[in-house]
Amino acid sequence: MINYFSSDFKLGILGGGQLGKMMLYETRKYDIQTLVLDPSAEAPCKISCNYFEQGDLMDYDTVLNFGRTADVVTFEIEGVNIEALKQLQAEGIKTFPSADTLEKIQNKAIQKKFYSEQQIPTADFKVFENLEQLKNAVEQDEVKIPFVWKSATGGYDGKGVSVIKQKEDLETLSEGECIAEELVPFKNELAVIVARNPSGEKKTYPVVEMEFHPTANQVEYVICPARIEESVAEKARKTAEKVSEAFQHVGLLAVEMFQTKDDRILVNEVAPRPHNSGHYSIEAAYTNQFEQQVRAILDLPLGNTDSKVGGIMVNLVGSEGHEGEVVYENIEEIMKMDGVTPHIYGKKITRPFRKMGHVTIVNKDLSEARKIAEKVKNSIKVISKKD
Amino acid sequence: MINYFSSDFKLGILGGGQLGKMMLYETRKYDIQTLVLDPSAEAPCKISCNYFEQGDLMDYDTVLNFGRTADVVTFEIEGVNIEALKQLQAEGIKTFPSADTLEKIQNKAIQKKFYSEQQIPTADFKVFENLEQLKNAVEQDEVKIPFVWKSATGGYDGKGVSVIKQKEDLETLSEGECIAEELVPFKNELAVIVARNPSGEKKTYPVVEMEFHPTANQVEYVICPARIEESVAEKARKTAEKVSEAFQHVGLLAVEMFQTKDDRILVNEVAPRPHNSGHYSIEAAYTNQFEQQVRAILDLPLGNTDSKVGGIMVNLVGSEGHEGEVVYENIEEIMKMDGVTPHIYGKKITRPFRKMGHVTIVNKDLSEARKIAEKVKNSIKVISKKD
Repeated sequence: MINYFSSDFKLGILGGGQLGKMMLYETRKYDIQTLVLDPSAEAPCKISCNYFEQGDLMDYDTVLNFGRTADVVTFEIEGVNIEALKQLQAEGIKTFPSADTLEKIQNKAIQKKFYSEQQIPTADFKVFENLEQLKNAVEQDEVKIPFVWKSATGGYDGKGVSVIKQKEDLETLSEGECIAEELVPFKNELAVIVARNPSGEKKTYPVVEMEFHPTANQVEYVICPARIEESVAEKARKTAEKVSEAFQHVGLLAVEMFQTKDDRILVNEVAPRPHNSGHYSIEAAYTNQFEQQVRAILDLPLGNTDSKVGGIMVNLVGSEGHEGEVVYENIEEIMKMDGVTPHIYGKKITRPFRKMGHVTIVNKDLSEARKIAEKVKNSIKVISKKD
Repeated sequence: MINYFSSDFKLGILGGGQLGKMMLYETRKYDIQTLVLDPSAEAPCKISCNYFEQGDLMDYDTVLNFGRTADVVTFEIEGVNIEALKQLQAEGIKTFPSADTLEKIQNKAIQKKFYSEQQIPTADFKVFENLEQLKNAVEQDEVKIPFVWKSATGGYDGKGVSVIKQKEDLETLSEGECIAEELVPFKNELAVIVARNPSGEKKTYPVVEMEFHPTANQVEYVICPARIEESVAEKARKTAEKVSEAFQHVGLLAVEMFQTKDDRILVNEVAPRPHNSGHYSIEAAYTNQFEQQVRAILDLPLGNTDSKVGGIMVNLVGSEGHEGEVVYENIEEIMKMDGVTPHIYGKKITRPFRKMGHVTIVNKDLSEARKIAEKVKNSIKVISKKD
């Protein structure tokens, strides 16, 4: 058994954003040495790691040379150089999740084809090499409007996804490989995080539910446990486990799913890392997702994924019309509320819709937590400093 | 209202040990800038703070110059230069807890006299300027054996406290001002943490109980909530609140108490900072003691002190006969157990009885947690590396 604790062992993390930052709370708790690579000198991970390197995550040599200084390499963002990961694995440096898994996930066209091959339920789709091919297919009625357009690569935080409701919408799309996906009318958007370690031990978190704003098409609350029938929750967890198994995934896999009007479960997409839908677990779960990620990739025993209390997460995103040095207006107001914990990611500059932090609301009574969450949402505002 | 979050505000922390380290998880969560002063270049706080300075906490100039670079100054250890704190306060730099409070607590003779003056129940005692005076008093039967000897200053982690059972024991004591205290037969040793902010808002944690080893005179488990009658718990909390009020204390005050055979509550001593008896709160409480300390000293609203689940804490101390590079034997075994979280403080070298970390066990059923805690205690061992 490797001695990770207060030892010379080094975990290399590609990416130094908020997910890495929250993972570092756990490596500090276990006193595991960490190295972080990130393109920004202002990365949230810059302090709390043992060694920080500024560099390009997509550059082969940068990633390779960085990885060679670590004993195990992981990532907190999908946009990393896969060839470098492959070379590191060839040199005997453990890389979790593996380059192979990441390759299947990084490109959404490959990801969707993988689901088809593995008989994992997903919305019907067609792949196009470029935008012109897609336009021709629409012209010839092979793809019917409305549909969902997804860029095969580079999509993040809602970018690279668009609902095409009329022909003119095609003109707003960016170039490159893409998918046209059936627009599925759904009851709920759900997510399940599955943890798996190299020894094959597996633990599954409860189903969470994304509650959307009644008019704006935006997730307002992530709620755990999802307020759905037990049979549907069971189906969602089983589906997520099947996806994790199919990828032979090591670490956390966040599986986003639709619950259709007729209670089918369709896999939307996955993220091979800690995920926004698991942030509630820091305050609510016996083992939070970041500790679980550390346990999983280091082949340590996995922790209990149950919740101690009900949890709701609200994202803190930059308000429209505000760009500049950040101020969290009314943060003191929400800190007065019962079971409320703000998490501030440490980005100095706010911009409209930029993810700046999140707030967790926990309560033994989930409906009480939901009421407090609404008060939180209506109180705190991410704005820029007045000069 | 001061903007602490992702701003230029700086919190200075005197001391960079494990208490500071755990407080830094919270300042990182809130993105509050921190400066840490500690004599050791290997201090657990060295990473995770924004600026680390190596220096003597008892040196007037070092503490003063360090404090001048901060907006608010606090400490995680009592042994700091009080004159420098006074000067900082005179210069308008907020220091919480205040120099005045710390002065009353740093010296146990002054602390005990303060309880007498404030009519706070405490075991009977006599103060002696030096060891010779104490020996004379014993000779003249003014102090009756058995009694408890306590050094007025410098006591820490059981050092500076001794039970005198026979005259010969007097020869083992160190020189200096001291107290002779009545040896009170007690049912339970209890502790309560009270949080108070500069605005006077106050929140009190549940009573915890120290469970001793049946033969060795050593605390084995800190258990929350204490398994005592509600009326006794209420009395203990009220007493702790009275102590906090008397000190006009800002920040956390951990009040250690005895429950006597006839259910009186006697104050033993206090610590003006996060405390070993509150470590359970990281996993068990709605607001852990370190987050509460940050909220309190920055005059932010205090968080809910209730527990989500039952919590038990086991200290990880260096095993006898082991000195050298640390290894946490069987840590993987305890990580398999339900609701178990190890905390490793990050000290590279173990020594007999050195505090190297702690383990928290949480469970909805406290008696189940207690069973698991015993398994933890019997499994993990802090030893030195074999060459």
